Amino acid sequence: MTIAFCEHGLNRDDHARANPARLAELRLSPLARLLAMEGLNPVLGSDNALTWGDASGLTEVSEVVFLGLDGEAPLFAPIPAAGDTRPAYEQRPAWDALSLLPPRDLAIYGGARSLVDWHARHRFCANCGGPTQIAKGGWQRNCDACGAQHFPRTDPVAIMLVEHEGDLLLGRGTRFPERRYSALAGFIEPGESVEQGVAREVLEEVGVVVSDVGYIASQPWPFPSQLMLGCHGTAQGRELTIDETEIADARWFTRAEVATAMDAQVPGEDKSFLPPPPTAIAWHLLNWWLERG
Amino acid sequence: MTIAFCEHGLNRDDHARANPARLAELRLSPLARLLAMEGLNPVLGSDNALTWGDASGLTEVSEVVFLGLDGEAPLFAPIPAAGDTRPAYEQRPAWDALSLLPPRDLAIYGGARSLVDWHARHRFCANCGGPTQIAKGGWQRNCDACGAQHFPRTDPVAIMLVEHEGDLLLGRGTRFPERRYSALAGFIEPGESVEQGVAREVLEEVGVVVSDVGYIASQPWPFPSQLMLGCHGTAQGRELTIDETEIADARWFTRAEVATAMDAQVPGEDKSFLPPPPTAIAWHLLNWWLERG
Repeated sequence: MTIAFCEHGLNRDDHARANPARLAELRLSPLARLLAMEGLNPVLGSDNALTWGDASGLTEVSEVVFLGLDGEAPLFAPIPAAGDTRPAYEQRPAWDALSLLPPRDLAIYGGARSLVDWHARHRFCANCGGPTQIAKGGWQRNCDACGAQHFPRTDPVAIMLVEHEGDLLLGRGTRFPERRYSALAGFIEPGESVEQGVAREVLEEVGVVVSDVGYIASQPWPFPSQLMLGCHGTAQGRELTIDETEIADARWFTRAEVATAMDAQVPGEDKSFLPPPPTAIAWHLLNWWLERG
Repeated sequence: MTIAFCEHGLNRDDHARANPARLAELRLSPLARLLAMEGLNPVLGSDNALTWGDASGLTEVSEVVFLGLDGEAPLFAPIPAAGDTRPAYEQRPAWDALSLLPPRDLAIYGGARSLVDWHARHRFCANCGGPTQIAKGGWQRNCDACGAQHFPRTDPVAIMLVEHEGDLLLGRGTRFPERRYSALAGFIEPGESVEQGVAREVLEEVGVVVSDVGYIASQPWPFPSQLMLGCHGTAQGRELTIDETEIADARWFTRAEVATAMDAQVPGEDKSFLPPPPTAIAWHLLNWWLERG
């Protein structure tokens, strides 16, 4: 099963971004479409798909980004007045939409959301404080005052399955929905590799030394713009010293407990915990772990 | 062999960062040391190691970052007046230092450099244009005007070995030193996985369709703050359509050509190309490929 948010299949057409004349052509194309959004939330149709509006009013100074080409159709998305950096499950309309959207629409929405949210929170130059202008069809902002160029952020996050003698370590974020446990995760910092970030985060959060870190899979996560790097590692012991400033709880789960929790996606009283939703890479990581046997 | 920039072995001590009283204690410790830098360049000692100065003059408002603990010794680095986003080989003093520094010092310098360069280029709030203040010992900046929090950037970059029937695809950046070829690379964009980023970049740069993308290893690269994600993939064909706005050249190399080029680190007339330096993850990727056989 494809990991959510990954397969929008649009042609990003990097050349068009850098060519103002070509961008103008695309804006004026009768095939051009504008993603319907209310702020950062998608406006769903009766079929729970994304809805698209007429793009004929777009001009060179419109607050929009060029998402790419869907076949011959240029797709655009509007930049909202304000961004939102809260976790997904605290943004109810968007969070609910994630479970409704068809996979391809989910991927289009995710990529669009990351980009327009970045614009909404980066209208000024971090280097000099001056106002910045959209450039490259929304894939850059430029500062006329100091000449600095700014690019959309993508923040790498390590998310990891930690195993000890056949059991799996899962934790609860301080703001998680009730009974949910998932893979531990944390931002990769300047000056460390993915593998080091995995080991550091696990040591910080639960006091466990991890070795033999390996990579499994990745996923873009648009709240606001993470690149989730799914990994696994082996714990050198099972005693947990939980850092309660970072997580609410962490526990070792048996293979049977994980298998039962993953068996259906609705919460049930017979499950030992509520697993991450199928839109999260953590769900795929748990399946990978169960299938590896 | 350890990948360069990865193993500084400092305790990053995330709790100290968030604790102003503890940070003050660390600044005032007689063991505290301040990295000697001229702008963004390290000041090397006669042994080509980093040099460290007295930290006793540091105050709460000093323009420094807390790197972490070296045993009991708190290490700090100064924020320069200006940052520098040029590629490494266009920054001669820093580039030359890379090949001289012992591995651990190289890793300490790399992490410090990424962080202080980010501060130098992010003194203002991207959300509102107001001035920002250093927070969390240099691992955050806060805006008093709008309340936005800003975090150091780490930009994920895919760097990939593309193979076809035993030959390897390598390219030349438009600003590469003469005769150097290396792995193709490009920034991961919002809304794509690492694996998709690899396929997109190769298609954009040389017009080749890549499948079966796998991950090899990662490296932090401090010019200015990339997270290099080393991957491999299989080309579906060998005809190259080079995008000259992105790269200067790309070629297929035989295993024998790569082995000869990697045999010594000094350029020689008998080599088909000059390989990437041992400080680059590309050098490790080429060795991985040769050893895999």
